[in-house]
Amino acid sequence: MASTIQGNAVIFTQGGPTAVINATWVGVVQGLILCKDVTGIWGAINGIDGIMNENFIDLKEQTAGTLQAISYTPATQLRSTRRKPGQEENCRMLDVFQKHNIRYVFGIGGNDTSESLDIINDAARDREYELRVFHVAKTVDNDLMENDHTPGYGSAARYVANAFRGVNLDNQCFGGLYIGVCMGRHAGFLTAASALGRQSPEDGPHLIYLPECPFNLEKFAKDVEEVYKRHNRCVIAVSEGIEDENHTPILQVLSTGRLEADSHGNVQLSGTGALADGLVNHLREHLEGKGIVKKLRARGDTFGYVQRSFPDQSPVDREESIALGTFAAECSASGNIDGSCAIVRVSDRPYKVEFKLAPLKNVAGKTRRMPAEFIAAGQNDVTDAFIEYAKPLIGELTPLGALDMSKKVTF
Amino acid sequence: MASTIQGNAVIFTQGGPTAVINATWVGVVQGLILCKDVTGIWGAINGIDGIMNENFIDLKEQTAGTLQAISYTPATQLRSTRRKPGQEENCRMLDVFQKHNIRYVFGIGGNDTSESLDIINDAARDREYELRVFHVAKTVDNDLMENDHTPGYGSAARYVANAFRGVNLDNQCFGGLYIGVCMGRHAGFLTAASALGRQSPEDGPHLIYLPECPFNLEKFAKDVEEVYKRHNRCVIAVSEGIEDENHTPILQVLSTGRLEADSHGNVQLSGTGALADGLVNHLREHLEGKGIVKKLRARGDTFGYVQRSFPDQSPVDREESIALGTFAAECSASGNIDGSCAIVRVSDRPYKVEFKLAPLKNVAGKTRRMPAEFIAAGQNDVTDAFIEYAKPLIGELTPLGALDMSKKVTF
Repeated sequence: MASTIQGNAVIFTQGGPTAVINATWVGVVQGLILCKDVTGIWGAINGIDGIMNENFIDLKEQTAGTLQAISYTPATQLRSTRRKPGQEENCRMLDVFQKHNIRYVFGIGGNDTSESLDIINDAARDREYELRVFHVAKTVDNDLMENDHTPGYGSAARYVANAFRGVNLDNQCFGGLYIGVCMGRHAGFLTAASALGRQSPEDGPHLIYLPECPFNLEKFAKDVEEVYKRHNRCVIAVSEGIEDENHTPILQVLSTGRLEADSHGNVQLSGTGALADGLVNHLREHLEGKGIVKKLRARGDTFGYVQRSFPDQSPVDREESIALGTFAAECSASGNIDGSCAIVRVSDRPYKVEFKLAPLKNVAGKTRRMPAEFIAAGQNDVTDAFIEYAKPLIGELTPLGALDMSKKVTF
Repeated sequence: MASTIQGNAVIFTQGGPTAVINATWVGVVQGLILCKDVTGIWGAINGIDGIMNENFIDLKEQTAGTLQAISYTPATQLRSTRRKPGQEENCRMLDVFQKHNIRYVFGIGGNDTSESLDIINDAARDREYELRVFHVAKTVDNDLMENDHTPGYGSAARYVANAFRGVNLDNQCFGGLYIGVCMGRHAGFLTAASALGRQSPEDGPHLIYLPECPFNLEKFAKDVEEVYKRHNRCVIAVSEGIEDENHTPILQVLSTGRLEADSHGNVQLSGTGALADGLVNHLREHLEGKGIVKKLRARGDTFGYVQRSFPDQSPVDREESIALGTFAAECSASGNIDGSCAIVRVSDRPYKVEFKLAPLKNVAGKTRRMPAEFIAAGQNDVTDAFIEYAKPLIGELTPLGALDMSKKVTF
């Protein structure tokens, strides 16, 4: 192990917000305060843009009360960017690091961020500039390699579970169909969390569709028809990223209007209600067309940006996010030169995690998807193994009650 | 005042769910248990359908623990319907009341329910059948006459305020536009609640559009352009019910696809993302077309059914909802023959309410809208008077923190 080196530290956050990114960087600050070799602790504003523009906030000048309040605050007070640095940006960042004796870099983000850090790390080595580079996991998608789960997932999953508890009961009042579209382009973990609030076998979501499974519109309609005939209602959770067998997004298959591209040139999935609306129309045509119901009550909601930013952190997620940040700082202080800070589960009952430092390259640019054992055989639900995996991550939910319908008044 | 009369009581719930309808009917049950003249306490399943079909659950047979858990549970365990009873249905209901010596009727609902109860009440009088008929206010729209505010509004407003706190911070990370569409066909109270989470003048929503004000697409684009130029971002709250000066819903003005009708034959506003998508496209064309931004980051979410069913009751709303139910039971036990149970505010500081029994006809079929003093002069925001009015209703929110951006690192 290398010894530590005296210099400044920079923390930046990158990619889509979660409810606990602030908690993580506050954790990094808490850890760094204990390291005598770390002189300045700076926050770059807007991710790597802040580094290139030398736009830094002095985090040691923030009051303890401010940091405490920020740790409860969703999204990231350091702001973000989706820019992936190229050759030129890497040079510029290294110049800034050298100019200001920045020796410790902490990037909180997903696999893109890990990849960027890996490239910067290699470039620093080429220049023989001693730099400590740490990636700290973050993403509501829960799709990072080396992690049992990622900070941010638990809170978003808590929201999705709670939202489905509510809309299931709402739907129960009138019957009919309800579709809720959840975030997740390639990984279905967040959509799968819709199952975590079920209290009885009658509770929705009755069907769950994940991007890991090819989505077939005909099978979908048949699945829904079956549930509808049994319960006179059907609550459905759908990942925004569902694709047909040719990997064409279903949003694109169903869409009649103009589709926008996101910053990576992919079809923009979030921030539009078109997928839910398209699926609702498809089911309406099927069920009304077959005469199963004359006038179908059908509603489609897209959970959108609220699911990743709702100010209700999972207590478990919060605690782990702070601790993982502190772990990153401790790694840097104990002579580690680089790595990705990840969560490992060491025990299921009782639920217990540890942190590890994984090689940056193991996380960089790779995507983890739902493993087969979490997906039900019919490809329209999750398994008990998934429930057991995910339940500890979202914290306690308010227990809800149900009327004992067996106590009928008889005459 | 008439004396009480021995007989059974029926409780039913009608119309759209809220987070606290169960709390209200549990409150009614708690009150009725103390009345010796009330023999059976029955819950009709699916509103007036349950009365007509004699489908009753014995609420005295539910355990205290079940009732407690139900009081925390969103939507209504008694289920609902949107059916408005006609002549025939009224006769059928009265037949059922007479057949089973039902003397106390409690209907929890909005102005439609109040109207139905008023008609049943008149019909009972015509038959000279002694019946006690009570309406208990409920609606997330907060649009009932005689009420300072209605049970259900506080919890839905709490959700909307919290959701906007989250999406405002999410939007702050990247900049660009964000539109959140809230429920409210004629009354803007729920959309207005988006302002309740603002902590600083920079916080969104920066613009709020209510159904009380004629909506003009050109003025809208200009409003947004102005905010965008100032902040490089803009968060916008929009009521689903916004209409142009000819009272055509904007959803209809913008829509290219097929529009569904709701159970009253109006254009279905909820359960579709079309309005948000249409407004986003309109702003994109305006801002990109004028060259103000080359590629606009713009997202539209429709809050949908989650906003009225999210399992996070406002503590104030919960307490008042239970108490209003108990008040209804007490009214019936103290010889009142009919009326609508309403919330009156007796003091702003400290916030304090009382309950009153208003004539059914004062509430029946009427809609309260946002008063002029709650709407900002530019018709794109709310006033401080609204904030003062609504803030006590949603309960405490977790305080959020903000980085002190003045503490820049200087070189």
